[in-house]
Amino acid sequence: MSRLRFRISISLDGFTAGPHQSVEQPLGVGGERLHDWVVPLAAWRVSHGLEGGEVNESTAVLEELTANIGATIMGRNMFGGQPGPWNREEPWNGWWGGNPPFHHPVFVLTHHARPPLELEGGTAFNFVTDGIESALRQARDAAHGADVALAGGATVAREYLNAGLVDDMALSQAPVLLGAGDRLFEGVTDLGGLRLVRTTGAPGVAHLGFER
Amino acid sequence: MSRLRFRISISLDGFTAGPHQSVEQPLGVGGERLHDWVVPLAAWRVSHGLEGGEVNESTAVLEELTANIGATIMGRNMFGGQPGPWNREEPWNGWWGGNPPFHHPVFVLTHHARPPLELEGGTAFNFVTDGIESALRQARDAAHGADVALAGGATVAREYLNAGLVDDMALSQAPVLLGAGDRLFEGVTDLGGLRLVRTTGAPGVAHLGFER
Repeated sequence: MSRLRFRISISLDGFTAGPHQSVEQPLGVGGERLHDWVVPLAAWRVSHGLEGGEVNESTAVLEELTANIGATIMGRNMFGGQPGPWNREEPWNGWWGGNPPFHHPVFVLTHHARPPLELEGGTAFNFVTDGIESALRQARDAAHGADVALAGGATVAREYLNAGLVDDMALSQAPVLLGAGDRLFEGVTDLGGLRLVRTTGAPGVAHLGFER
Repeated sequence: MSRLRFRISISLDGFTAGPHQSVEQPLGVGGERLHDWVVPLAAWRVSHGLEGGEVNESTAVLEELTANIGATIMGRNMFGGQPGPWNREEPWNGWWGGNPPFHHPVFVLTHHARPPLELEGGTAFNFVTDGIESALRQARDAAHGADVALAGGATVAREYLNAGLVDDMALSQAPVLLGAGDRLFEGVTDLGGLRLVRTTGAPGVAHLGFER
C-alpha cells in the first residue's frame, strides 16, 4: 500500500512557519531558520542542482525521507501564497519557479479550480477542489505504487492528521523560537496511532520518526 | 562559576505540564507521559531508591544532567501546588514526601515567607520571597561551587530564560501531545544566547542540549 508520509521542520515552540508569510517570506518572519540544518547538506544541495555541501548524521535521515516518493500533496498557501491572478493568460506558478524540485505530480488543495500546470523536470501541479481524501486518492494513483509525500503547510497537515490518514510522520526539531505563526499541532488532540519509532541526533537538529 | 542548568521534558506541542494540575496530578492531565522515557531507566530508579531498570542512550544523558548539582531552584507550584494551610503547627510539605529526591538545598520562589523546612536525606526547602536573582544568589552560595538546577515549572523557567540567566538548557522532547497546560516558551522571544550544542536520539525521546 502506498503510504502517506509527512515530514516537516518545527520550532521549539511548535511552529512550522513564522508570522507574516508572504511571497518574499514563504515561511514567515524567521521561518527560514527552520531549515538551517538541511540547506548545508550535500544531499539537499544535489536535489536542488547545487554542488558541494556537508555529510553528517542528517544525511541518511534526509535520504530516507525523500526516497520512494511518487507524488506530493500540499495546501494552497504552500503552492503559492495568497490567491493570485489565476487565469490562463498569465498563470501564477507559485514561488517554485519554472523547474520545481519535485519532479513528480503535485496535488494542490484549493477552493479554486484550475487546469493542471506542467513545468520542466517532470513536476505537474494538479488542483484539487473536492477535499483531502480525493487528493490522497489521486496522488496515490499518480504515484504508481510509490509513497505520497504530504508537504504541508500546517493547515493541510492538521486536516490529514485529524483524519488519521498519515502513515508516517518525521519531525525535524530545529533549535529556534518563532513566537508566532503556524502551530502544527493546534487543535490536534492525539497522534492517531502514530508512535515514535526512531530518534536521531544530528548537528543543529533532532529528528523524530513516527509510524502508524 | 557555578552554572544555572535547566532541564525539562516537553511535549510535541510545547507543553511541560498538561491542564488541570492538582495534588493528585502534579503534571496535569496526561503530563506524566512526558516522563515515560525516564522512569524505566536504571539511572533514574536508583536515584529514587528503586532497583532494576533499563540502560539505553538516555542513560549517559541523564547521568550528565544530574551530575554536579549542589542546589535546586523551583517555583511555588512545583513545590506544592496551590498555597496550602501554611503555618508552623501543620506545615504542608508539598508532594515530595518525607525524603525528597534532591538531597541538597532547594530554593522555592514564593510570595509567602516561611521558615526553612529540613527533611530526611539532606533536602532542605528554603522559601525565597525577593525574586529570581536573590534565589539564584542564595542557591549558588549553598551549592559550594557545584552547579544549580532550575527545576521549573514553566512560569519560573520563563522568568529565568527571559532574564538571560540560564547557562545550560536540556530539553527532552517526548512524543506526546497534551493540547493544553503550561507552554514553556509562551512569551519567550529568543533563546538569549543559548545555542544547540548536542542532540541525542534515544528510545521514546530526543534530547537537545543548549549552552550559552
